Amino acid sequence: MIADVLAERYASSQMKDIWSAEGKILLERELWIAVMKAQKELGLDIPQEAIDSYERAKSNINVASINAREKITRHDVKARIEEFCDLAGFEHIHKGMTSRDLTECVEQLQVYKSLKLAQMKAVASLGAFKAYAEKYAEYPYAARTHNVIAQLTTLGKRFAMFGEDLLRAVCGLQQLIDTYPVRGLKGAIGTQLDQLTLFNGDKKKALKLNELVLEHLGISNSFGATGQVYPRSLDFETVAAVYQLASGPSSFAKTLRIMAGHELAGEGFAKGQTGSSAMPHKMNSRSCERLNGFQVIIRGFMEMAASLAGDQWNEGDVSCSVVRRVMLPGTFFAIDGLFETFLTISRQMEINEAVIDAEKEKYMPFLLTTTVMMQAVKNGIGREDAHEVIKEHAVATLRDLRAGKIVKNDLLERLANDSRMPLDLPALQNILEKGKSETGMAKAQALDFAKRVECWLKKYPEAESYAPAPIL
Amino acid sequence: MIADVLAERYASSQMKDIWSAEGKILLERELWIAVMKAQKELGLDIPQEAIDSYERAKSNINVASINAREKITRHDVKARIEEFCDLAGFEHIHKGMTSRDLTECVEQLQVYKSLKLAQMKAVASLGAFKAYAEKYAEYPYAARTHNVIAQLTTLGKRFAMFGEDLLRAVCGLQQLIDTYPVRGLKGAIGTQLDQLTLFNGDKKKALKLNELVLEHLGISNSFGATGQVYPRSLDFETVAAVYQLASGPSSFAKTLRIMAGHELAGEGFAKGQTGSSAMPHKMNSRSCERLNGFQVIIRGFMEMAASLAGDQWNEGDVSCSVVRRVMLPGTFFAIDGLFETFLTISRQMEINEAVIDAEKEKYMPFLLTTTVMMQAVKNGIGREDAHEVIKEHAVATLRDLRAGKIVKNDLLERLANDSRMPLDLPALQNILEKGKSETGMAKAQALDFAKRVECWLKKYPEAESYAPAPIL
Amino acid sequence: MIADVLAERYASSQMKDIWSAEGKILLERELWIAVMKAQKELGLDIPQEAIDSYERAKSNINVASINAREKITRHDVKARIEEFCDLAGFEHIHKGMTSRDLTECVEQLQVYKSLKLAQMKAVASLGAFKAYAEKYAEYPYAARTHNVIAQLTTLGKRFAMFGEDLLRAVCGLQQLIDTYPVRGLKGAIGTQLDQLTLFNGDKKKALKLNELVLEHLGISNSFGATGQVYPRSLDFETVAAVYQLASGPSSFAKTLRIMAGHELAGEGFAKGQTGSSAMPHKMNSRSCERLNGFQVIIRGFMEMAASLAGDQWNEGDVSCSVVRRVMLPGTFFAIDGLFETFLTISRQMEINEAVIDAEKEKYMPFLLTTTVMMQAVKNGIGREDAHEVIKEHAVATLRDLRAGKIVKNDLLERLANDSRMPLDLPALQNILEKGKSETGMAKAQALDFAKRVECWLKKYPEAESYAPAPIL
Amino acid sequence: MIADVLAERYASSQMKDIWSAEGKILLERELWIAVMKAQKELGLDIPQEAIDSYERAKSNINVASINAREKITRHDVKARIEEFCDLAGFEHIHKGMTSRDLTECVEQLQVYKSLKLAQMKAVASLGAFKAYAEKYAEYPYAARTHNVIAQLTTLGKRFAMFGEDLLRAVCGLQQLIDTYPVRGLKGAIGTQLDQLTLFNGDKKKALKLNELVLEHLGISNSFGATGQVYPRSLDFETVAAVYQLASGPSSFAKTLRIMAGHELAGEGFAKGQTGSSAMPHKMNSRSCERLNGFQVIIRGFMEMAASLAGDQWNEGDVSCSVVRRVMLPGTFFAIDGLFETFLTISRQMEINEAVIDAEKEKYMPFLLTTTVMMQAVKNGIGREDAHEVIKEHAVATLRDLRAGKIVKNDLLERLANDSRMPLDLPALQNILEKGKSETGMAKAQALDFAKRVECWLKKYPEAESYAPAPIL
Repeated sequence: MIADVLAERYASSQMKDIWSAEGKILLERELWIAVMKAQKELGLDIPQEAIDSYERAKSNINVASINAREKITRHDVKARIEEFCDLAGFEHIHKGMTSRDLTECVEQLQVYKSLKLAQMKAVASLGAFKAYAEKYAEYPYAARTHNVIAQLTTLGKRFAMFGEDLLRAVCGLQQLIDTYPVRGLKGAIGTQLDQLTLFNGDKKKALKLNELVLEHLGISNSFGATGQVYPRSLDFETVAAVYQLASGPSSFAKTLRIMAGHELAGEGFAKGQTGSSAMPHKMNSRSCERLNGFQVIIRGFMEMAASLAGDQWNEGDVSCSVVRRVMLPGTFFAIDGLFETFLTISRQMEINEAVIDAEKEKYMPFLLTTTVMMQAVKNGIGREDAHEVIKEHAVATLRDLRAGKIVKNDLLERLANDSRMPLDLPALQNILEKGKSETGMAKAQALDFAKRVECWLKKYPEAESYAPAPIL
Repeated sequence: MIADVLAERYASSQMKDIWSAEGKILLERELWIAVMKAQKELGLDIPQEAIDSYERAKSNINVASINAREKITRHDVKARIEEFCDLAGFEHIHKGMTSRDLTECVEQLQVYKSLKLAQMKAVASLGAFKAYAEKYAEYPYAARTHNVIAQLTTLGKRFAMFGEDLLRAVCGLQQLIDTYPVRGLKGAIGTQLDQLTLFNGDKKKALKLNELVLEHLGISNSFGATGQVYPRSLDFETVAAVYQLASGPSSFAKTLRIMAGHELAGEGFAKGQTGSSAMPHKMNSRSCERLNGFQVIIRGFMEMAASLAGDQWNEGDVSCSVVRRVMLPGTFFAIDGLFETFLTISRQMEINEAVIDAEKEKYMPFLLTTTVMMQAVKNGIGREDAHEVIKEHAVATLRDLRAGKIVKNDLLERLANDSRMPLDLPALQNILEKGKSETGMAKAQALDFAKRVECWLKKYPEAESYAPAPIL
Repeated sequence: MIADVLAERYASSQMKDIWSAEGKILLERELWIAVMKAQKELGLDIPQEAIDSYERAKSNINVASINAREKITRHDVKARIEEFCDLAGFEHIHKGMTSRDLTECVEQLQVYKSLKLAQMKAVASLGAFKAYAEKYAEYPYAARTHNVIAQLTTLGKRFAMFGEDLLRAVCGLQQLIDTYPVRGLKGAIGTQLDQLTLFNGDKKKALKLNELVLEHLGISNSFGATGQVYPRSLDFETVAAVYQLASGPSSFAKTLRIMAGHELAGEGFAKGQTGSSAMPHKMNSRSCERLNGFQVIIRGFMEMAASLAGDQWNEGDVSCSVVRRVMLPGTFFAIDGLFETFLTISRQMEINEAVIDAEKEKYMPFLLTTTVMMQAVKNGIGREDAHEVIKEHAVATLRDLRAGKIVKNDLLERLANDSRMPLDLPALQNILEKGKSETGMAKAQALDFAKRVECWLKKYPEAESYAPAPIL
Repeated sequence: MIADVLAERYASSQMKDIWSAEGKILLERELWIAVMKAQKELGLDIPQEAIDSYERAKSNINVASINAREKITRHDVKARIEEFCDLAGFEHIHKGMTSRDLTECVEQLQVYKSLKLAQMKAVASLGAFKAYAEKYAEYPYAARTHNVIAQLTTLGKRFAMFGEDLLRAVCGLQQLIDTYPVRGLKGAIGTQLDQLTLFNGDKKKALKLNELVLEHLGISNSFGATGQVYPRSLDFETVAAVYQLASGPSSFAKTLRIMAGHELAGEGFAKGQTGSSAMPHKMNSRSCERLNGFQVIIRGFMEMAASLAGDQWNEGDVSCSVVRRVMLPGTFFAIDGLFETFLTISRQMEINEAVIDAEKEKYMPFLLTTTVMMQAVKNGIGREDAHEVIKEHAVATLRDLRAGKIVKNDLLERLANDSRMPLDLPALQNILEKGKSETGMAKAQALDFAKRVECWLKKYPEAESYAPAPIL
């Protein structure tokens, strides 16, 4: 048998349990039994011994036998009905139900459980960002924009920045979890006709039955008017929310790959790990690269989900079926693998402070050109003129450094010697000296981010202590 | 000049006003002035005459002159700074600001205004679904699944079903509008260093300045820790929310195209309209088709937005810039065109009741096979056996009808003549007679949907009376 | 273990064999052995007994053992090297090779084999289109544009039209197969340095080694300058070519779903098949719907592939790795399932000629409005005037029919009674009578298409007789 | 009016001319006239004075007037027919034609011209890669995989590597250009019925007319059997081919952004250019970033194109229309902007050899670990054992360097002191010394690439001298 590569190589056992064939069949059978019980309670003549018999048979799951049946009926639910009825020796399940009454509910339950699991790991990841944001809240770090040295930030702020991205996504996902609407038992075209027929037109009973089903599922919201299927835009909304979760970790991973290129930090290198089979010295950011790969995968699955939205013909059909079989579990395996990877990186990461300090030292005059410009403006030069003068000297200095013409960054001297610049060398050196520890609101922002994460860790207490399983 | 085809052919003037070059430049200048005023209020030495002069110059917008400047600086914001300063005769704007302080705020303002406009039209569209749901709440209609006759629903329920899809999206978009976070004035790398420098390290003043900017923008939420740019996952979240809006109308449009193929309904045909330049009789669903096209377009723009998420290197760069210039306005022009088209269709749509009634009549015995099966089960036959017997006869009947062997649907007779079936002809005819008006909870669901729309119409009072402009 | 749903539910055993874990490991080991043999031949000191020992061990494939090793090394190729060496009791494989020397070659071989298999089935599908195009080449059929009756075509032409789409794709795929370039043995960064080192700098030997590897693979083209990996745009090119294959069958499937809604044709309904577990009469186009689903899936995988193109950092990395593990086999399983489904439909399809004839009869006057217009123009009226007059009456007729005001299409009478129209009733009836069999070049086009397919059936002789395995 | 941002900010005037409103209308009118002339030649009674009158009117293009007409007809082609006829004072154009006969041909002509223009610029870009490949063919450069120092390559080889990617795409695009099939004059549903009617059923004349139209267009291939429209998979094929063009330049641009981060090279900085409005020292890779943005944009447009493939209902409709209006010109403006940007970068790029040399020096022992390993294996140690020993010391050395514990890379000393390693210090230093210039086949590959580009420069002679216009 060909294994699902995302599930088997990257996903955690918790996530796999939700989506396994056996797990799904059990959820279906439990739903059928819950419906029978509710129907009996509401007055339908279903013998208790039938229910008992189904109960006894429910864990006897033989996927191969079901598959053999499907080859004849060419209808997967019909095959599973027949199997379960044969096992129980009764024909009482699926009364007044259409296939979608079963499958929509069970698949939505799988999605719902997966969303909650993903959210827990997202919150655990927020916790990791928080820890680094706090640890390095004050530690000056040379920020880069356009991958070029910009101004000083703190390393903690950099973590907070990527954490902020994830935090926004976590808030959005929580909103989805809290309002996630299940289709419920609505019958072949959504009118609940068949349940009404069962109950001789008693609308209260039909509504009550649906309520009991929601209770069984543990999901409190429900769509009002749907067709045979719930609107597939909900699947898109789901995958899009998951995709958004991937953004913060993914930007972080790309940045760590760049940092590793400068040896400023690395994702860590476990005992026994091999970087390259050919080049023994390699310590590659392979987990970060993989994380970025997961994001691409989810984007592809989202494209599939997006294509299902807005494509409902009449009361629905199953052109979505094969797509959902692939992209729903795929999305959750991928995000699960992404968080497992991220949490692993967060525990192994290496920060090379000596390298960071050396880089700051090298570029300090450049890191402060804005401050120099602003001070110069205070001393009387126009903003745009100051910009021009500093740019001229900074570019020249950089070019001389790159050409090996000079070895020390002498930008301050050049500026001091330019008569247009209303700042002398001591003033400039003073700016440099003071500037080495000036990181604006970086520390405050890092700590503020950390504080805003706290309520999430309280909301998901298992997140705080969650440890990823070893990854490949 | 080559026009933006989405803007010029399909978007409304309200949406175009938000995204025009002149409109954006004005928003920028107003922001610069608001910042100067706030800086002055917080103690910065900015002459009142400078502010006055900028105020006087702000509406003097010369796009060509700005473009000429950009050709030299290769920096669009620098070009706009120089233009505005030259017009005003001062150099006081953009103090302590980086380009992104300006552009992020203004672009987010454009997005925010667009979201609110789109939401208003989405609510107007909900109103249209509501009106049809109410009007046809009780009117029986032959539902289709897999594009094949299924059971009876009501036409109002069908509208409610697509409306429900949109309603979910409207709720989601409102959540986005209510929590939409703006980046604010955070400086070159997000640390607010330069504003702090301006205010000699006074953190309260820097925070206050940011607050005053948010007040000017009219957006109350703000990101905490960001880099040079806000996380681009927010742009993705935005476009994804807009894309979800398109789902309900798009499924409706596809269904109406199918209905038109059966002449059950049509999108309407205006006076003077031409269906085909070659075939004079054609009355095409071209507006519905266009609507489906808009959905595809937004999906493409969403793909662009999705590619920006998770791709932030360090504190940011501008690889997103050209993409956002295309996909942000594009998304809003497309959704605007989509709603304008949908609202036009909703006002012109033709429902052909005679055709609908004839279809129901033709297929009535098929529409009721579930009810027959359930009644048979009540009379003693096993569910799966009943299913098998009915399927056998229904398929044979259908095949005879299609082959022209019979002209009248005689399924009931066939069933009555089958000894396995515990229902005689009168019983079956009784089911048929009663079944003609049995549509389950369809009416209740349609009206329930309509009721849930009411609060939205109250929240967006301009939506109720909104009339689309004539479309091409 | 969680199964790959595309592989296990939909793909054929031929395609699964190419992508199974065991199959891939065997291909790798065969490559290693081929390299050793070539290296020995070129003078490297590799004992024959080592080669023999590897040969004996090569089919002893223990996936679990390899997986256990990978958990330690965190390097999949390293794990497979160690396993194979332990089995053989030697350390002679992988000399001068980097992981990518192995994996690129083997994965490209898998792709290459898959492309050829997909092409064979595409050609078999062309054969199916051809058969229908020939069978119904002359059979008049009411064409639709905008899903509304247009003019007469032939049913054969309709098949040819979708076949033409596929034919274009088949030509493109052949071009890809014929020029598919393999990376070959290029070393860690593509410079072949390590093979050169092995051969003490003998460039001819390094080149010869690469040649022998290509010979082993059976692929004649090779990239010149690559990095650690071949350009991922080739993977995109591959998936895009496969995606194009899906277009013709997919448009056909959508059209058949629409035709089934009108009962003009259907995808067939096998013995024992169940349409709906709730509605026994249902004969759904579920295979067509599934086929459309496959297309969406491939589009999602293509999005993944597209994201890898243009994202090579320096000489390469493995951010593509997890993506390729998912999307490469996924793409081929999906296209395989698509063709299996299509070929199954093509063998079961039902054409309901009586329904087709009735539809033609009903709409005949409309089907001929262009001809009427053109004849009228010949008789002296201006083209645009004629268009206007006919449109006026056609629309009125259609509306009266839909409203039940008339039951017979009396368009010709209306036109004859309009003094602007230079054609009397006999003339119009003459057009109608002649028009019933006038289908332009439809027959010729259908047969021409069929003829152009012939060379492909000759090129892929196994395609002509290929029978799909039973589908779920 | 809102401008198309891609056209107006980034595209060249050549590309804009192809897609302007006026340009398209002229192409349409020329086609109409060509058809009239051919029809007259084939015996149709069209007065010469009518043709002359249309000829005189053809350049009198009033977009506003046409738009006003479209507001009434809601049919764009009808509006353009009326306008042209009114201008000419005749009603002789568009005989036997449907709208798509006109628009498909003209739009395909626009696509065809655009493909050829894009190809010319792609070849010019190949020329740029070639020049760098040749110039730096022998210049050693520290290759990186996983963004970490790997082995020595040459800088020319690095350029050749990205050029190779583009070269593959150029070959594919040429194949598309050479086989690009136009739909031609096929009538309302593709059967050529109306042209046949015009010619009283004379099939030879109808075929001849189509031939004359192809001749007018200058495209020699034509689809056989199509519906109202040509298969939209061709549009996808087109955009996919264009997307592939973007891959090589895009990977190059990302790599140059990384190189710029290390100051190894830069995209150049023009006189007067501003890197940052806040930080005067910034020299950003903004053109490279923009180039990467273009790639994302084309991917989004490709997603639109992909959604049109396989979505043809019956003989076609216009749900593709609005999508094609956006994504066809958009794709070509974006690829045009991409190549203009790339060619600009290629002319301004700065290579900092001093920085490159310093980096090599710093990492030399690591760059040679493979060679050391292979030599050690020759001296008797097992491959996997050698790998382990070297890895151990390399990782320790790297960690000590990063921690600031050592300042000089002493890997060789560590290895020499390890008794497991069968190489002493002189032997290792010998490897180091020799290794400084050993770049395997890098030079040969670079020159081989350059050679393979030559035939393309001959095929597109205007490419060699093509100079990009100044970019923003």
